[in-house]
Amino acid sequence: MEAEATKEILLVALGGNALIGKGQAGEVTEQLDNLKLPIRQIVHLSREYSVIITHGNGPQVGNLLLQQESCEDVPRLPLEILVAQTQGWIGYMIESTLDNELMAQGWDSETYLVSLISYVVVDENDPAFLHPSKPIGPVYSEEKAALLPFPTVKTAKGYRRVVASPRPVTIVEKREIKKLIGQGFIVVCCGGGGIPVVREGRTFNGVDAVIDKDLASAKLAEEVGVDVFIIATDVAGAALNYGQPDERYLRRMSVTEAVSHLAAGHFHPGSMGPKVEAAVEFIRRGGKRAVITSIEAIEQAVKGRAGTEVVRD
Amino acid sequence: MEAEATKEILLVALGGNALIGKGQAGEVTEQLDNLKLPIRQIVHLSREYSVIITHGNGPQVGNLLLQQESCEDVPRLPLEILVAQTQGWIGYMIESTLDNELMAQGWDSETYLVSLISYVVVDENDPAFLHPSKPIGPVYSEEKAALLPFPTVKTAKGYRRVVASPRPVTIVEKREIKKLIGQGFIVVCCGGGGIPVVREGRTFNGVDAVIDKDLASAKLAEEVGVDVFIIATDVAGAALNYGQPDERYLRRMSVTEAVSHLAAGHFHPGSMGPKVEAAVEFIRRGGKRAVITSIEAIEQAVKGRAGTEVVRD
Repeated sequence: MEAEATKEILLVALGGNALIGKGQAGEVTEQLDNLKLPIRQIVHLSREYSVIITHGNGPQVGNLLLQQESCEDVPRLPLEILVAQTQGWIGYMIESTLDNELMAQGWDSETYLVSLISYVVVDENDPAFLHPSKPIGPVYSEEKAALLPFPTVKTAKGYRRVVASPRPVTIVEKREIKKLIGQGFIVVCCGGGGIPVVREGRTFNGVDAVIDKDLASAKLAEEVGVDVFIIATDVAGAALNYGQPDERYLRRMSVTEAVSHLAAGHFHPGSMGPKVEAAVEFIRRGGKRAVITSIEAIEQAVKGRAGTEVVRD
Repeated sequence: MEAEATKEILLVALGGNALIGKGQAGEVTEQLDNLKLPIRQIVHLSREYSVIITHGNGPQVGNLLLQQESCEDVPRLPLEILVAQTQGWIGYMIESTLDNELMAQGWDSETYLVSLISYVVVDENDPAFLHPSKPIGPVYSEEKAALLPFPTVKTAKGYRRVVASPRPVTIVEKREIKKLIGQGFIVVCCGGGGIPVVREGRTFNGVDAVIDKDLASAKLAEEVGVDVFIIATDVAGAALNYGQPDERYLRRMSVTEAVSHLAAGHFHPGSMGPKVEAAVEFIRRGGKRAVITSIEAIEQAVKGRAGTEVVRD
């Protein structure tokens, strides 16, 4: 166990496309299949790093919301419970894929795995509660979106439902996660950005919201002392003029450059924006390395050969 | 930490009524409120014992199944994924209630909590796959049950949907759970009997089933070396002639007596039967103490003052 403590800590935040690929409906078999590519790389990296995996849940939590709205026969659940459900669902898919990959590589008896329920404190006065902005669920056409009974927002891919997305204040299980890492566990946690709760005196109470998983991951990374923070998504990194003829991917940007590009609107608020913001916050709070990269290039990004790295000024 | 290792290990399996009381619809606020009574007792017991908590999910998983059958817009999920969802949902409710109670008692900074995703290996040739028998979801009247598009069974409370319920072979996370207990964690695991998987070569694959949570708890208790196994439910213990004028609660029964009462049909196959069977299996495999008791009397049962204890012959 002594040896484990000397490993650097790597946090990989898996984006939605690690689970549901372009044009896929989101069948579980597809999601399990998609996970193999990132998980294989993470298992390789686990020989050298203590590993934490976080993950998104946007499409999944949106689907659960649609399902329960379609059924009058059983009580509806608040949004934080749906987030908790996706932690069970996606945590199981990630852990069993990890298990299968560890068995395939013959390391299963040496490795401890845990997928844990995580909840995250938010501020009840966060202005996000007044301005829902986090896209969840399926993508709709503009015509369809206009007819939906809930608020939507235009994202890079089309229109999606939005819910409140307050900022993460602290990860409730940070002590536990730190201890588990120290004991050599691979830890899957903070699924979907964590179950949002507010602290009222000596009680935690769930709230109707979804926390951005990249911002929650940055907070966790700060609180447990992560060394390398990888944000894995469906593009090669952050780009200026994304989707335009003069689109230009960045290999490195300083914190100051990143903040200036954010302000200039180069990074889409519903997708790349929070990723850049999360990387910036991690580096500002003393983190060593933060890289935004594609699912395919996680290993290369850790080695400094792919993605967009946000560096200190 | 040394001290933790010398504590006896207590496993409390929480039945459905720890979450949904008689006549309740199953609103989340009700479930969180109901959990306070058992959790308060478990927090007291955690000063003296290393604690594992398992829980049922019958009403919850049945509700999720109904919800997704009501919605054509998103892909349906296999039953094992719904079980995983209930582990997230109920694990969060239990852990946050534990957290609140630990804060109320001033012990929160000394205690590590973890609710983990658990999956459990079953045998793909288990005859249960041919004979669905596990009741899940809401209770229906006989008239309503006759019209439902899925198989139902008559339980002590009324008619309920049934699904396959194979026997647990091994808990995949047993090494992790043992290590966590040794490190002083309170562990919430094996929710709903665990996510059922079959092992095919070097791969785990989910299967369409639900494992009985008391049998899974007995298997876990055996595999991690539990000392005291408490099965908490909505009656005071096991009774002969349950519900009849000559009903008689038992304070103790030997393994041989229990097996004989089971064979004579004294314990309902959908409710008390698997609890008695789980207690018998635990004692037969070398367990020290197994008690079936009410949610109200968990502490008293641990102290030998309540419930039905199954003892060695």
